[in-house]
Order: sequence, then C-alpha cells, then structure tokens
Amino acid sequence: VKLELLAVEGMPEVNAGDDLAALIAARCELVDGDIVVLAQKVVSKAEGRFAELTATAPTSRAVELAALTGKEPGLVELILRESREVLRAEDGVLIVETRHGFVCANAGIDSSNVPGETRVLLLPEDPDASARALRRDLGSVVQKHLAVVVSDSFGRAWRSGQCDVAIGCAGIAPLLDPRGELDREGRELIATLQAVADELAAAADLAREKSSGHPVVVVRGRGELVTGDDGPGVAASLRDPARDLFR
Amino acid sequence: VKLELLAVEGMPEVNAGDDLAALIAARCELVDGDIVVLAQKVVSKAEGRFAELTATAPTSRAVELAALTGKEPGLVELILRESREVLRAEDGVLIVETRHGFVCANAGIDSSNVPGETRVLLLPEDPDASARALRRDLGSVVQKHLAVVVSDSFGRAWRSGQCDVAIGCAGIAPLLDPRGELDREGRELIATLQAVADELAAAADLAREKSSGHPVVVVRGRGELVTGDDGPGVAASLRDPARDLFR
Repeated sequence: VKLELLAVEGMPEVNAGDDLAALIAARCELVDGDIVVLAQKVVSKAEGRFAELTATAPTSRAVELAALTGKEPGLVELILRESREVLRAEDGVLIVETRHGFVCANAGIDSSNVPGETRVLLLPEDPDASARALRRDLGSVVQKHLAVVVSDSFGRAWRSGQCDVAIGCAGIAPLLDPRGELDREGRELIATLQAVADELAAAADLAREKSSGHPVVVVRGRGELVTGDDGPGVAASLRDPARDLFR
Repeated sequence: VKLELLAVEGMPEVNAGDDLAALIAARCELVDGDIVVLAQKVVSKAEGRFAELTATAPTSRAVELAALTGKEPGLVELILRESREVLRAEDGVLIVETRHGFVCANAGIDSSNVPGETRVLLLPEDPDASARALRRDLGSVVQKHLAVVVSDSFGRAWRSGQCDVAIGCAGIAPLLDPRGELDREGRELIATLQAVADELAAAADLAREKSSGHPVVVVRGRGELVTGDDGPGVAASLRDPARDLFR
C-alpha cells in the first residue's frame, strides 16, 4: 500500500469570484481516484467570505465578551454572528459552536494571510456545499472521478496544538464503517468508525508549507474511498450536542 | 512538496519479546529522514502487555462501573488499574484519563486482533520510552537518521469516529512551533502550534489496511522534521488537566 501526497505548486493569491477548479486544473495532473484537499482559507477567499472588523458594530454582549477574552469587540461580534453557542470564554480564549456545528476557537475566523489590516476571513457559509461545488467543477474540467475535502486547523480537547480536520467533503464518506469485517482472529471489528475525512485533512497538512502557500494538496492512492455520489458531507460526522459528553 | 506513505508489507504476528526493529528492517528499505509510524498494538505485543480478563479480580468499584457501562467487570478492573481518573461512565461508554495522561475510552485496552478469547492488550507502559527504544534499535540496525511515532486510534470530543493520534514519539517534536515565521502579509504567525506527531499518526492510518495487518507505515519526504535528539515525546503535548477546558 502506498499513498502519495502532492502539494499543488504555484497557486496564486485567490480573490472573491476566482475559479478554484480552473486554477487547480492548470497546475496539476489529476487522475481518477484522487482526493483533493483544499485549505478552508482558499475556499473562503474564492467565495468572498471577507469581513471588515471596523464595519462591525458590536452588541453589548460582544463588548462584554471582548473584555473577558481580551479580543477586539468587532471580532467578537463577528464570532457571535457566526455561532450558535459560546462554550468557553476566558482570557485569550473564545470557543464556540459555529452555525455549522463545529466546535472551535473564534468560529474559525482568521486574520493571518488575509490582505488588509482590519479584514478577516469567515468560514464558508456551507463547507459541504463548497466541497460539492468544487467536486462538480473540478470533475468537469479534468474529466476525472475525484473527491474533495475542505480542511481547517482546529484545536482539540485534552491535547495542545492544532490538527487539520475536515469541515466539508464530497465524494467521500467522512466516516469509514468497517463493521461486518472480521479481524485476523475472526472477531467482528466493532465500534471503530474511522474518521477518514479528518485523517485526509491531517495528512494533507503535512505536505504543505503554510507560510509559502500550499493551499491545495492531492492525495493519491486511496481511490477506493471515492464514492459515486457526493455522500452525506462532514455535517453527518458531527456529534449530536445532546449526546456529546464533552461540552 | 511530495510526501510518500509506505505500508510495510508482510509483518508477521508479533509476540512478546520479538525484535520489532529487526522485523521492520528486514521488510523495507529505510532512508535518512524517514518517520516510522507503528501502531500501538504491535508495540504492546512486542512488550508483552497482555492481560487475562479471567485472572483479574474486580474490586467493588469495578463491579459497579461494569453494571453502569455494561462492560465486563474484569475488563473494567483492568481499565481502572491503567487509569488516573474516570471522566465519563454511562451505558457502553467508559472514558478515562490513563496513567500516561491520555483521555480515551477503556484506557486504550483492546481485544481485537489479540489471540485468545479472554486476552486483552494494554497500552505500552511508557509509549515515549517505547518510541525512543525503537528509534535507537532501528537506527542502529539500518544506520539511518530516523524518527519514530507510536500511534493509536482514539475517539474525539464533538466529532464521531476515531482518528489515529500519537501516543509516543522520538526524534520528532510532537508540536511544531512556527512562531517567529511571518505569513505572506508579513504578520507573525501566532498561536498555531501544529500537532505534527498526531498528523503523522492520522496520515499513516490512511496507508494501512487494518484487517490485513499493516502495523508499520513509513512516512517519507519530511526529513526536516527529524531531530538530532529524541525530543520531549508526546507527553509534552498533553494539556495540563488543571488548564484543560473540556474535562
């Protein structure tokens, strides 16, 4: 078994309205079964998900949370607008559940590698829909059978540091279900759904040099993971908050 | 940038006392800068970390938790012996902090792919020490400059499914610190420690077919991550429980 991860070289700075599929197809030779992992940042930029901190009038709740966390009131206001619920707020930390259902810091809003002093970048409106659109566009440009994963770097409970996870996917199931398969002792493998979309995101992050711009990584060698239909998307792999033991 | 993941073919069933370094070196051609990712299971087997459920007399607390979770009392007793603290216990679920500081289900004790009806496999006593020993042995057999990661599949908060993470490492920092580097807009990249050891574990899991025995995966192409000394190990990347917001 051999897996290759190829960072797409020479991607330009992406602006709102840019055709990501065309930009990618011009810079690499895709083959059937490739899984294309795109950093959220490039997807959000193409979708024009920019916001201006200075244009965002904070509510009193945002001002209060800004004081508590030491963050800018305009940024906190944007975070709240992108969120369903604030899970933790303390000095330097604001962890929310986003409208999509992701638990992450600052609702995934990012200011690094975004042009403009007061400009920030929001997560895509619907990252699974972004993945589906990219899969359709890229598949039709290159005429190959592909999967698409949109990734972002999130912190984790219990462990320091950030790991890339999938925030959207199409053409691949986010969780691989080996139930029904037997282990080598003939016992059924149970209860181990493999989070393949997240593992693909993490793997792609290793093939990228962040500061030098590798927003797109092609994973080659696991074509059997690529499905005919778009599949349920990452949304299907988020725990039901009511059944989540760690909120 | 190109990364290759190569599953080592033909690894035999491993028994207590087996020389993993020799088994690996006989089955693949390692080069300087390779990062060798070993599934915990094969490391625990070589270290003889087997236990017998039937030989384990449960305490009254284990009997109580067994009734609550629907698990075998002998297994629960072993889980408690391997743990510092029980974090969550309910029907079908027993999440603990292990003696090592890992938050995971069942203290990482595993019964799939373990020969014997009542035999289970514990995590290594000290997985960072296991990684250091394997790095030393493997490096001296093949005379190459390598890093070693020991991985296991853990569940996560907020997301369904399991992802492989690092439980031990040597010759690589578990967290890569890009602080001081600038983004493309000239702003310092802050607060994004990349959990490279965990990302390597996740990536390796994609190159493996679990039911057909690929306990060892070689990651090639990120030799600059391999350090001269063994480094702090995975232990250094676990959050201080007192400062962990999600217990």
